[in-house]
Amino acid sequence: MTAVATPVVSFLSDFGLSDQYVGICEGVILRRCPEARVIHLTHGIDPASVALGARVLAGAMPFLPVGVHMAVVDPGVGSERRALALRSGDGRLFVGPDNGLLVPAAEASGGITEAVHITNPAHMLEPVSRTFHGRDIFAPAAGSLAAGLALAELGDAVDPGSLTRASTPGYDLDGTALRVSVQHVDRFGNVQVSAAPGDLGATFSPGGRAEVITRDDRYYVQCAATFADVDRGELVLYEDSDGSLSIAVNRGNAAELLDVVPGDPITVEFAPGA
Amino acid sequence: MTAVATPVVSFLSDFGLSDQYVGICEGVILRRCPEARVIHLTHGIDPASVALGARVLAGAMPFLPVGVHMAVVDPGVGSERRALALRSGDGRLFVGPDNGLLVPAAEASGGITEAVHITNPAHMLEPVSRTFHGRDIFAPAAGSLAAGLALAELGDAVDPGSLTRASTPGYDLDGTALRVSVQHVDRFGNVQVSAAPGDLGATFSPGGRAEVITRDDRYYVQCAATFADVDRGELVLYEDSDGSLSIAVNRGNAAELLDVVPGDPITVEFAPGA
Amino acid sequence: MTAVATPVVSFLSDFGLSDQYVGICEGVILRRCPEARVIHLTHGIDPASVALGARVLAGAMPFLPVGVHMAVVDPGVGSERRALALRSGDGRLFVGPDNGLLVPAAEASGGITEAVHITNPAHMLEPVSRTFHGRDIFAPAAGSLAAGLALAELGDAVDPGSLTRASTPGYDLDGTALRVSVQHVDRFGNVQVSAAPGDLGATFSPGGRAEVITRDDRYYVQCAATFADVDRGELVLYEDSDGSLSIAVNRGNAAELLDVVPGDPITVEFAPGA
Repeated sequence: MTAVATPVVSFLSDFGLSDQYVGICEGVILRRCPEARVIHLTHGIDPASVALGARVLAGAMPFLPVGVHMAVVDPGVGSERRALALRSGDGRLFVGPDNGLLVPAAEASGGITEAVHITNPAHMLEPVSRTFHGRDIFAPAAGSLAAGLALAELGDAVDPGSLTRASTPGYDLDGTALRVSVQHVDRFGNVQVSAAPGDLGATFSPGGRAEVITRDDRYYVQCAATFADVDRGELVLYEDSDGSLSIAVNRGNAAELLDVVPGDPITVEFAPGA
Repeated sequence: MTAVATPVVSFLSDFGLSDQYVGICEGVILRRCPEARVIHLTHGIDPASVALGARVLAGAMPFLPVGVHMAVVDPGVGSERRALALRSGDGRLFVGPDNGLLVPAAEASGGITEAVHITNPAHMLEPVSRTFHGRDIFAPAAGSLAAGLALAELGDAVDPGSLTRASTPGYDLDGTALRVSVQHVDRFGNVQVSAAPGDLGATFSPGGRAEVITRDDRYYVQCAATFADVDRGELVLYEDSDGSLSIAVNRGNAAELLDVVPGDPITVEFAPGA
Repeated sequence: MTAVATPVVSFLSDFGLSDQYVGICEGVILRRCPEARVIHLTHGIDPASVALGARVLAGAMPFLPVGVHMAVVDPGVGSERRALALRSGDGRLFVGPDNGLLVPAAEASGGITEAVHITNPAHMLEPVSRTFHGRDIFAPAAGSLAAGLALAELGDAVDPGSLTRASTPGYDLDGTALRVSVQHVDRFGNVQVSAAPGDLGATFSPGGRAEVITRDDRYYVQCAATFADVDRGELVLYEDSDGSLSIAVNRGNAAELLDVVPGDPITVEFAPGA
């Protein structure tokens, strides 16, 4: 990082923005690297949702400058889980807990070329608390890396094969019936499910029709390229900007209409010959 | 912008802060212009509230450095509405959808001196999604402009007279009766209505009294210079920091007391001879 | 500040992030000091909670770079309360209202060495509104200080002994019964109370047991070093990352379980001989 005029640190967490946790971590980073530019990727990951955090982090990589990527969704803070720093093939550095949060992003960035278990107290805030490793371990590590510290200085090399991987929700496609779960509901009420159009071959095609079946009810939806292709108030099934399958209501809130929250099961029954 | 040591990009949207949309756009901007400083003006515009976004953006201009001003409140994303970049008389640049969001701010900044329909794919992220032009069109344009790109490089010049204008909620003053709608409720529960003291002549004067009539009830209020001029818990009608007429409760929440939300009609009946 | 390559302005308020107030203040700061780096410490202080803001600000000091620290939790805006700028012994500068918000942070930073009542209109936005001194007085002062203005230029020196101090919620320890109030509930539902393990001597010790008594019910809790030391779903009493006593549920939400909000009274009855 030493050759970078403006080192960038991106920061994703489940800390939310109502408390001071995020600001304190940014302060710790800037104390180590006053030139760093901090991009707050999001702090709205649902608390302890490691799989969601991992997916969002990996999906963001093509849009972020090469830099240090700190991520803290860490329900195991204070337990024996390791603190990690990784280097990827395209020169990115990742800092966060060894619970599966970092691996998909690093693998999508040219693969993990170096992995370190952060153990060097010289680059921590001492005494390290039992509950806020974002402040005491991860932010100091991210700031030090942004300031040019060699990755190996943070601790002991570990085998990338030993890293924890998060399980991700999947899908089941049986003929024209797709069983998925709700991965995420965004601010607009768009409902992202745990499958991608790319998984479905010819079963999903814009212009077709389908039924969305929730625990409580069933709804006709149109398959389209975007929600603007259907009339105001209509349900639409489309490939969202993450490349996932999503359900929206044009100028409305699909999650409210369908009465679903993350984790809920949904079945999509595609009309044959669509 | 090339002569500016630290280019500033302000960013307003209705994306909220619970998702990664804002962070991803900032990443795209910084990939094009690593020196840019991004001011998050607000991402709390009510979803799809173009008129509110336009009003907030225009009202903020006197307080923001001259720079690139990106705004995305875009219920028509994916439809045929144009993507725009504008230059104003005082040297500001604006980027956003052609739905009325940008025009009041540009007109308040010395008028629109150049308007471009963004069509040049060299300055977009390809393939452009149908649902996230913030990431794929507006952020790359804002970042490129901040890095010094000439406005005309983004696409085709268009006649400023052809730009879409948003309708703004108005008011009706009939003697001492003022009919308005709720424009905005802020975090403190202060209720901003669709008129300004400047519209009302001598009808509104600090020290006077009035009644506020909602759908369900009526309330006595004092007209004052600020909420601190009335007793704790009292309703007050005052000119807010935007220059609009607002209703507050000193150290309380007026929106909860009045039980109103944006869009609700309110009548203010001023006491004669106040 | 003139010798600092990258001046830092930290900013704490109760403005929330749904409105444009924070972004406008940042714009005002950057107009005065384009090089400033703004750290948003938090804007989620409960509206008008001066004591909470003071505690959070003071607690953050060890983690923030030395810089200008602007804080606005200001229920008295528009009244006669003074606007202040302070210097502390370690070279920090503080800007905010004279209501007790700044004093603990400045005292924790080497003591107050200089105090100024901000009165110089040359460093305000004129006309100064009655309701938004963050924009019109504090942000211009913070930006000017970050750009190198001498503190004394902002107004008249005042005696640090004359500054308002906020009352802070306390605790009452009677044998093994600790009476406290809820100071804060964070995003994870962790309940911070108005005492610190350091106040309790041997009464609190990890490994012991206690009962938490709310208005409505009583609950057995374990005393531990961190929530990860108890089983999933169990209540735990621990020293949090601020050094305060907190109640958590491992991987759960203690505030929901206990049904408490800030200000609520809680009694902790420690088991003797724990």
